[in-house]
Amino acid sequence: MNNRKLTKPVRVGNITIGAGARIPVQSMCNTKTGDVGKTAEQIAKLEAAGCDIVRLAVPDKAAADAFGTLRQKTNLPLVADIHFDYRLALICAAGGADKIRINPGNIGKSDNVRQVAEACRAHHIPIRIGVNMGSIDAESEKKYGRTPLAMVESAFYHIGLLNQYDFDDIVVSLKASDVAKTVEAYRLMSARSGYPLHIGVTEAGTAYMGMIKSAVGIGSLLLSGIGDTIRVSLTADPTEEIKAAKGILRAAGYSDGGVEFVSCPTCGRCGIDLIGIASKVEMALAATDKPIKVAVMGCAVNGPGEAKDADIGIAGGDGCAVLFKKGAIIKKIDEADIVSVLLDEIGDM
Amino acid sequence: MNNRKLTKPVRVGNITIGAGARIPVQSMCNTKTGDVGKTAEQIAKLEAAGCDIVRLAVPDKAAADAFGTLRQKTNLPLVADIHFDYRLALICAAGGADKIRINPGNIGKSDNVRQVAEACRAHHIPIRIGVNMGSIDAESEKKYGRTPLAMVESAFYHIGLLNQYDFDDIVVSLKASDVAKTVEAYRLMSARSGYPLHIGVTEAGTAYMGMIKSAVGIGSLLLSGIGDTIRVSLTADPTEEIKAAKGILRAAGYSDGGVEFVSCPTCGRCGIDLIGIASKVEMALAATDKPIKVAVMGCAVNGPGEAKDADIGIAGGDGCAVLFKKGAIIKKIDEADIVSVLLDEIGDM
Repeated sequence: MNNRKLTKPVRVGNITIGAGARIPVQSMCNTKTGDVGKTAEQIAKLEAAGCDIVRLAVPDKAAADAFGTLRQKTNLPLVADIHFDYRLALICAAGGADKIRINPGNIGKSDNVRQVAEACRAHHIPIRIGVNMGSIDAESEKKYGRTPLAMVESAFYHIGLLNQYDFDDIVVSLKASDVAKTVEAYRLMSARSGYPLHIGVTEAGTAYMGMIKSAVGIGSLLLSGIGDTIRVSLTADPTEEIKAAKGILRAAGYSDGGVEFVSCPTCGRCGIDLIGIASKVEMALAATDKPIKVAVMGCAVNGPGEAKDADIGIAGGDGCAVLFKKGAIIKKIDEADIVSVLLDEIGDM
Repeated sequence: MNNRKLTKPVRVGNITIGAGARIPVQSMCNTKTGDVGKTAEQIAKLEAAGCDIVRLAVPDKAAADAFGTLRQKTNLPLVADIHFDYRLALICAAGGADKIRINPGNIGKSDNVRQVAEACRAHHIPIRIGVNMGSIDAESEKKYGRTPLAMVESAFYHIGLLNQYDFDDIVVSLKASDVAKTVEAYRLMSARSGYPLHIGVTEAGTAYMGMIKSAVGIGSLLLSGIGDTIRVSLTADPTEEIKAAKGILRAAGYSDGGVEFVSCPTCGRCGIDLIGIASKVEMALAATDKPIKVAVMGCAVNGPGEAKDADIGIAGGDGCAVLFKKGAIIKKIDEADIVSVLLDEIGDM
């Protein structure tokens, strides 16, 4: 994207967040971190689904100890998610955390903040400050209410606490369950600072509605050049978050390659089973990494023209279809052969 | 939305498009329009799903005649979708069309345009000019390439043809299968004119990826105050388009009321089956039109605070949950009773 805001680079394990780097996709395990077996299994599933960075909840000492064990079992960067207890951050920093999510305003006295900042600096570990609409610091909320501006002010409050100890290796997130407020908070923050932004909509909801809210919010920000790493939050299996995140990145023009698939919504002009054909073709091509555009169109009258920037496609007739490449018709195919002929032709490309 | 662009009002049957009116949701039948029985059945299904305006393909005389018959069978506004043949537009105008989608640059000589403009004026029927990236007029494409600017110039070319006959009762759409280009085209058009805009991403694809592309594109525009009516195009059952459209409107802050549902993505702190509980609660509340916010949160430590603007919610403990209202904890519930107690409490509100 040519309008992407250039932020400061932050290293999380072997991955760069910010400064125009490829946008890594994050998720979070919903297993008990202390259950090392189940958590390792879920991390592996997330990796297979294409997740770049995994976060683990660290609510207590047992989880912090398990975090160190899990760090040895995967190559994916791991983030420790910590609230309130700075000692858990010290354990995870020593245990190889690649990033720590902690809000320094919530961990008590100034010396606790100093210890966390120094441990993270010593181990080259960045900190994500994660302000949610429900966890704005008291003073910012008093001054600005529960607003996007209050979230941004709250982020600067936490940043200031770390800056006191010369720590500035920071990623910021500003999540609300309201999409418009989330987008506004990130826009304000992006205009006022160069910290890389971790974007997402919090408590977005179940797989269907949560995906729509995340697509609207994350997608809007990405289209306007804001966002350095993304997390789709769904009340669903975490691998669903990866699938949705990759879809949102692709929709916003940040794809990693692979097939771009377009298909028309069908209408009264369509004489073939387009819904069935499109599903089969899309599924068959899901794992293909050829950087081509494939079109499955309902009618031969408009199809090849409407999709003339597709590398290859079919357009339906009555019980048949034409195969076209770059808008030029190549040959006619019987309906029963559409899927196999199209996939064969793509295989040969 | 307080930033909504005020466009010119256009009447489609008993519905206003533009001028800040509620945003109507559109879909298109994928039955043969000439098959009156099947098409009437699909219109009824779309109406039941919450569709406000239905479009029908009119590729030939038989479909145009059927359009008039279908007009008598439903109260929903019906739009005739016509390409190339101006005589079909004249038949549909006489047959009671509530809007006609036709591009006057594609219907031949000037006198054809005059006849269509006069018929539409006589019957108070607006015209939607629908420019797609694949159907830019030759001169605009030659000057500006296949770009968002060329789409906008193409729209003004078609508008100019209607304006020659003093016809200006116009809705405009500018769809591409590329989301970023679609959004850019609508932004340009919105900055340069006051015509109400019908927004959507064309050939978005199958139910999953098409929904994400539509959510990113339509959602971004709505968040920035652009868009007067929406159509989600999916290669799927048309009622899926209505479900997705309503989700996008809600995500962008244009909901019609009904329950706002938030739920957290679960993490290692969660000790109950949150995914199952959230799905059950969301489904049970789908048809409720109480304008309340309901939260289903994984942990009692953060849940009630994070969701303190929810009217009611639960937050999980270990095999149990607390019920809270506006952030204040009311009582403890056993895990087995969470769904029923929460739904009962909502029923009493």
